[in-house]
Amino acid sequence: MTAADMISLNQATVNKLTLAQAAGLCVRHEFPAIGLWRERVAEAGLAAAVAAVRAAGLHVSSLCRGGFFTHADPAARAAAIADNKAAIAEAAELGADTLVLVSGGLVPGTRDLPLARRMIADAIAELVPVAQRSGVRLGIEALHPMFAADRCVITRLGEALDLALRFPADSVGVVVDTYHVWWDSTVLADIARAGDRIVSYQVCDWVLPLPADVLLGRGHVGDGLIDFPPISAAVAAAGYAGYVETEIFNERIWAAPPDETAATVRERFPLAF
Amino acid sequence: MTAADMISLNQATVNKLTLAQAAGLCVRHEFPAIGLWRERVAEAGLAAAVAAVRAAGLHVSSLCRGGFFTHADPAARAAAIADNKAAIAEAAELGADTLVLVSGGLVPGTRDLPLARRMIADAIAELVPVAQRSGVRLGIEALHPMFAADRCVITRLGEALDLALRFPADSVGVVVDTYHVWWDSTVLADIARAGDRIVSYQVCDWVLPLPADVLLGRGHVGDGLIDFPPISAAVAAAGYAGYVETEIFNERIWAAPPDETAATVRERFPLAF
Repeated sequence: MTAADMISLNQATVNKLTLAQAAGLCVRHEFPAIGLWRERVAEAGLAAAVAAVRAAGLHVSSLCRGGFFTHADPAARAAAIADNKAAIAEAAELGADTLVLVSGGLVPGTRDLPLARRMIADAIAELVPVAQRSGVRLGIEALHPMFAADRCVITRLGEALDLALRFPADSVGVVVDTYHVWWDSTVLADIARAGDRIVSYQVCDWVLPLPADVLLGRGHVGDGLIDFPPISAAVAAAGYAGYVETEIFNERIWAAPPDETAATVRERFPLAF
Repeated sequence: MTAADMISLNQATVNKLTLAQAAGLCVRHEFPAIGLWRERVAEAGLAAAVAAVRAAGLHVSSLCRGGFFTHADPAARAAAIADNKAAIAEAAELGADTLVLVSGGLVPGTRDLPLARRMIADAIAELVPVAQRSGVRLGIEALHPMFAADRCVITRLGEALDLALRFPADSVGVVVDTYHVWWDSTVLADIARAGDRIVSYQVCDWVLPLPADVLLGRGHVGDGLIDFPPISAAVAAAGYAGYVETEIFNERIWAAPPDETAATVRERFPLAF
């Protein structure tokens, strides 16, 4: 198996489809794995979701997502922990390689980045024993710094890794998503340093101009400005041999026929290596 | 003098005004210094611009901007060097504390970040002797990573500093702009490490949601989510005792009466410390 065989489709890329429809799409286009979203798992029901991916012969390369740990209100923080424990249980049932964590932005009503970062570390510390008992690896994802205020104060792979390294390797790792980290002059060194802490590798491209909603500006591999091969090579050299997910948030791609999108993902995939 | 006395208005904040009008605005609102843009200097004529700021008793805290070094075509690279030499001469005539460099994005037709970074280092190396002869300090500005592809591949203060440290301290330093670097978990350490390499400190706020054109999403100090005092304290502790410029790109602020904008900049300025 080469990295190019380890193709996975994150269902966010075809976000109009139910879980069963997305699983069927993966089978039709010979994707051996799928990345799932909790909303779609809940919609199907967990047991039915597990049955659907098993019947389709699909591996679950990730479950998106846990996190959003930064709340001013202790009750809201406790609710976030409870929700993340539920997500860990779902990831275990689905046999997902990792539960992706989008950690959360500034604590509402504050501008205190260190406070937000402490809350995230505290929350992960609380989740680690649960993850260990369930055999689930938490994947800390660094998001692009343009999302620092409102979605994720963990803005660089190196920062995600430093946080992950505070916890046991069997339960906490990092997600490498090209869209979020491509610009960073230290990203290749951070990938090397991450080694076996890499629990997920996601690809999509940086397309200009940015759309009005910057969440939705991602593109198919090859449509944008990211130089994928050096990043993919670093990820492989670090020892990561898992699935490579294409995860694209883009209104235009969402409006396209899903079979066309899946075919494009497959066609473009070799360009990432 | 405290840092709060070192207020300067970057003329981009009132971008509808000519240089003479912006200088008059600074005098009316008792700004001791102004940050100038080359387009407005050229429009006035260099000698007239120098005369206008001297007559107004204003110090020129920065000249914006040089840079844009990343070109595929050797002739275009040579033209960029020539233009930057002209900018250095203008900065010297104006007595500007620094010539701000926005280094340039990816080389057109490539996705090669290391190539762009090498071109920038090479260009600065070529400019250093000119800057030294003219007594001008070049200020390498890290831009927010959302501008990495199209405006500036130097995306973090630490990266700008590592580049500056390759050249003599009397001719190359770094610009700290809160808008571009606030999100970075290493920014306070990078500021401390920068020490006397800091040649300019600019403030404006990170406001959500980002507008359709992300270049224009900046806000008055206090309107957004940046925690200024720790950054300003680190800049002061690093030894920077120069002017603190407010530089805001925002269509709504540009449409406001300039006297109202200047009054707001002055009123909000203490919040930065």
